[in-house]
Amino acid sequence: MLRACDSEEKMMALRIAESVLSRDGALTELAKFRHWLAELEKTAHMDVDVLPLDDLAGWTSSPITGNISHDSGKFFTVEGLDVRMPDGVVPNWSQPIISQPEVGVLGILVKEFDGVLHCLMQAKVEPGNHNGPQLSPTVQATRSNYTQVHRGRAVPYLEYFRGPSRYRVIADVRQSEQGSWFNRKRNRNIIVETDEDVPLLDGFCWLTLGQVHRLLAVDDLVNMDSRTVLSCFPFAGTGLLRAFASHRGGFHGSLIRSYSEDERSLHSMDDVRSWITEVRAGVDVRTRVIALNELRFWRRTEERISHESGLFFDVIGVGVRAGGREVAEWNQPMIAPVGTGLVALLVATVNEVLHVLVHARVEPGYVDVVELAPTVQCTPENYAWLPDTARPRFLDDVQRLRPDQVLFDTTLSEEGGRFYHARNRYLIAEVDIGPEFEAPDFRWMTLRQFVELLRHSYYLNVQARSLVACLHSLSATQTAP
Amino acid sequence: MLRACDSEEKMMALRIAESVLSRDGALTELAKFRHWLAELEKTAHMDVDVLPLDDLAGWTSSPITGNISHDSGKFFTVEGLDVRMPDGVVPNWSQPIISQPEVGVLGILVKEFDGVLHCLMQAKVEPGNHNGPQLSPTVQATRSNYTQVHRGRAVPYLEYFRGPSRYRVIADVRQSEQGSWFNRKRNRNIIVETDEDVPLLDGFCWLTLGQVHRLLAVDDLVNMDSRTVLSCFPFAGTGLLRAFASHRGGFHGSLIRSYSEDERSLHSMDDVRSWITEVRAGVDVRTRVIALNELRFWRRTEERISHESGLFFDVIGVGVRAGGREVAEWNQPMIAPVGTGLVALLVATVNEVLHVLVHARVEPGYVDVVELAPTVQCTPENYAWLPDTARPRFLDDVQRLRPDQVLFDTTLSEEGGRFYHARNRYLIAEVDIGPEFEAPDFRWMTLRQFVELLRHSYYLNVQARSLVACLHSLSATQTAP
Repeated sequence: MLRACDSEEKMMALRIAESVLSRDGALTELAKFRHWLAELEKTAHMDVDVLPLDDLAGWTSSPITGNISHDSGKFFTVEGLDVRMPDGVVPNWSQPIISQPEVGVLGILVKEFDGVLHCLMQAKVEPGNHNGPQLSPTVQATRSNYTQVHRGRAVPYLEYFRGPSRYRVIADVRQSEQGSWFNRKRNRNIIVETDEDVPLLDGFCWLTLGQVHRLLAVDDLVNMDSRTVLSCFPFAGTGLLRAFASHRGGFHGSLIRSYSEDERSLHSMDDVRSWITEVRAGVDVRTRVIALNELRFWRRTEERISHESGLFFDVIGVGVRAGGREVAEWNQPMIAPVGTGLVALLVATVNEVLHVLVHARVEPGYVDVVELAPTVQCTPENYAWLPDTARPRFLDDVQRLRPDQVLFDTTLSEEGGRFYHARNRYLIAEVDIGPEFEAPDFRWMTLRQFVELLRHSYYLNVQARSLVACLHSLSATQTAP
Repeated sequence: MLRACDSEEKMMALRIAESVLSRDGALTELAKFRHWLAELEKTAHMDVDVLPLDDLAGWTSSPITGNISHDSGKFFTVEGLDVRMPDGVVPNWSQPIISQPEVGVLGILVKEFDGVLHCLMQAKVEPGNHNGPQLSPTVQATRSNYTQVHRGRAVPYLEYFRGPSRYRVIADVRQSEQGSWFNRKRNRNIIVETDEDVPLLDGFCWLTLGQVHRLLAVDDLVNMDSRTVLSCFPFAGTGLLRAFASHRGGFHGSLIRSYSEDERSLHSMDDVRSWITEVRAGVDVRTRVIALNELRFWRRTEERISHESGLFFDVIGVGVRAGGREVAEWNQPMIAPVGTGLVALLVATVNEVLHVLVHARVEPGYVDVVELAPTVQCTPENYAWLPDTARPRFLDDVQRLRPDQVLFDTTLSEEGGRFYHARNRYLIAEVDIGPEFEAPDFRWMTLRQFVELLRHSYYLNVQARSLVACLHSLSATQTAP
């Protein structure tokens, strides 16, 4: 009955490092992958038309509340949220929000080929994508999906993630998604390893972590669901440093040590947790679900719901005709944000270990008040409508970065099933640590501390998780894909 | 800038063990303590009369919703909750519930005297206590308390827990309370060490952990707020085994090893977390706040709100006249449960390490669906009204225990500020592990695993945390206080 979990953990970290170092795969060379993706782009077409909200087949606006819901009662509902934050810059506002109480599954299936871990990835077109197919996890399914409310085909590979105890679970944790657009949304992020034979279906391919990491540097290719699951890979343990022996110097050494060093962190884990408790206990946020037609400063037409300023986001309708999806044709509401966002993480080497500057951020849809966010996360143009005091801390620093400080700079898409052309510029940049970066709602943490918190729900927000995946992708030397 | 957090943690575990082994204190001998408490009982009197709900000064029932709230808008509100759990034994019910969105502070101040850690405890009378004063943490305050909505005196010692970074933080985490009676209640549990001179006010005393542990064996003495904070003391690390060298054999050895052993646990921590994710992702619970006058099967009179069966709990009113409280006289609603509850934890030694049998339990007021509860937690008489299938798993096993299996058996009170004469029999009993204890919603865990989860919010429910404090109290040989 004895287990040897410590050495198991170390072994897994080494196997992950091995896969990260496999910058191209024997199974699917990146050159072939690009060709395969281009072919898919031709066949897996999806036509998306913006439709008036009032004309969506299968969706009804309640005559009493204005709330928009599917006639089956499943999927999601667009309703209103009233937010009160007495101490906030904007102490009270209301907004449309998506309510989707079901816990969905985002799963990556992993298998060893020729001694190297590969991830089963899917090229998937979604109505909100501004381009063609993007790289998705093996499974990306709401409960309505997999209980087949819309009478579509069964979700392929889902069986690996239901009753995962038959397989080796590498990570398994529920995480939040955009707290500005979703009310208490939770998805299960799960990574499972199998050694069974896995049939390879159309639209799927096996890639090493090193390959996925190279693809992360391509604009709008690795989708949000992939990124959040990728962030959960346990990059931990001193074993990593050994595996990455050739990367001991400079930035790479600092990054790799950051996955394992406890004693060189600026703040102990107890202090980090106490800080989170302090911030969460201190913020007074009260949210109340209200009817969509009770919103103030939002205007609804037959076509869409928009803020009077024209900023933030619109709620729009789309009609979709797809090949290669569970259902060939459907309508749905979507959130269409205004502008491209900026999501930036400042990093600095302290005590030879990389630290990241984390922001304890309030979003009204979070399950628990505050989550840890990147240093800056905003859509700069939205601040036109808000008081100057609302301007995000450190935005100026990010906008003043020199090119040689930038380590990662890619524009990536958010969830294409709910958000229409929602894109953020993801940026990682190195700074010299200094007192100008001290602020009560910000803390410097090592990656080990960050990743440790990722094992539990609701600590890191979805943008921070994306950036953790991007940071992982820098752990081996980057070469253009 | 280098820290040595590992050795700091070990040192703290040793100092905690030292305090646990101090079964009587030089500062306040237990004999003196008993005398002091008896004296207090005479002076710190509190007269509590049950009053009609409709006659509570300062409280109003909304003519539209029936919800009962304080005229200041602060403290708490009694409202209704509609609960839907399609797969549950009772798929739909509604009930009164207390809404108290403020995060309160439960804090214990710790200081070393003669090389031994002592806790600053308070003898406090509360309106719900069925007896006299009970032992409370140093501070037990809602935000309304400490912002002095009811114009009472300032909360003594509160300054140690606001901006705790000036002191040494031993534990600091927000935790839930009764999810059957509170909607999303959260309190900050915090333990802070100081080496400053601390003036000793009337009604307070310094006790070692060993003394508090002995007092835990006394019926209705150590109150709920103390128990939940006590559970957060970091009993961890192999150093403990050294400190408790005289307890290496039998049950004590098994208990002490359970705080430190990773490799001898039945399930790895990854598996435990994956199981929690699985249960939380699989349970479909939807709650909706409704008006108190929308409840089904509940009857409201001028006097009280009761379930038609006479079971579960009543909402009653009380009038309080107190000496030695922040305010001398007030009225308030309270929840008065029917019957005495049973809260039992089965434990077993596996691989020479104590494991506890944990239940993943749904309560409608939890922030996140499910929390880890003791093996059995119920009021047996409530099941008269419910279908046989609702009978709690393992209740029969607990009711059939032989006296020699019982390690802890004390009746303790729940929060006396909101609950009227709410008492549970807390039981810890040893069994032989066997297949009869396997069930999907139950898992055997070591104390180290349990305590590790306690560092984060919402894993262990308040009853489980009470029993963790009770288990801590068994780590040194028990002698009658």
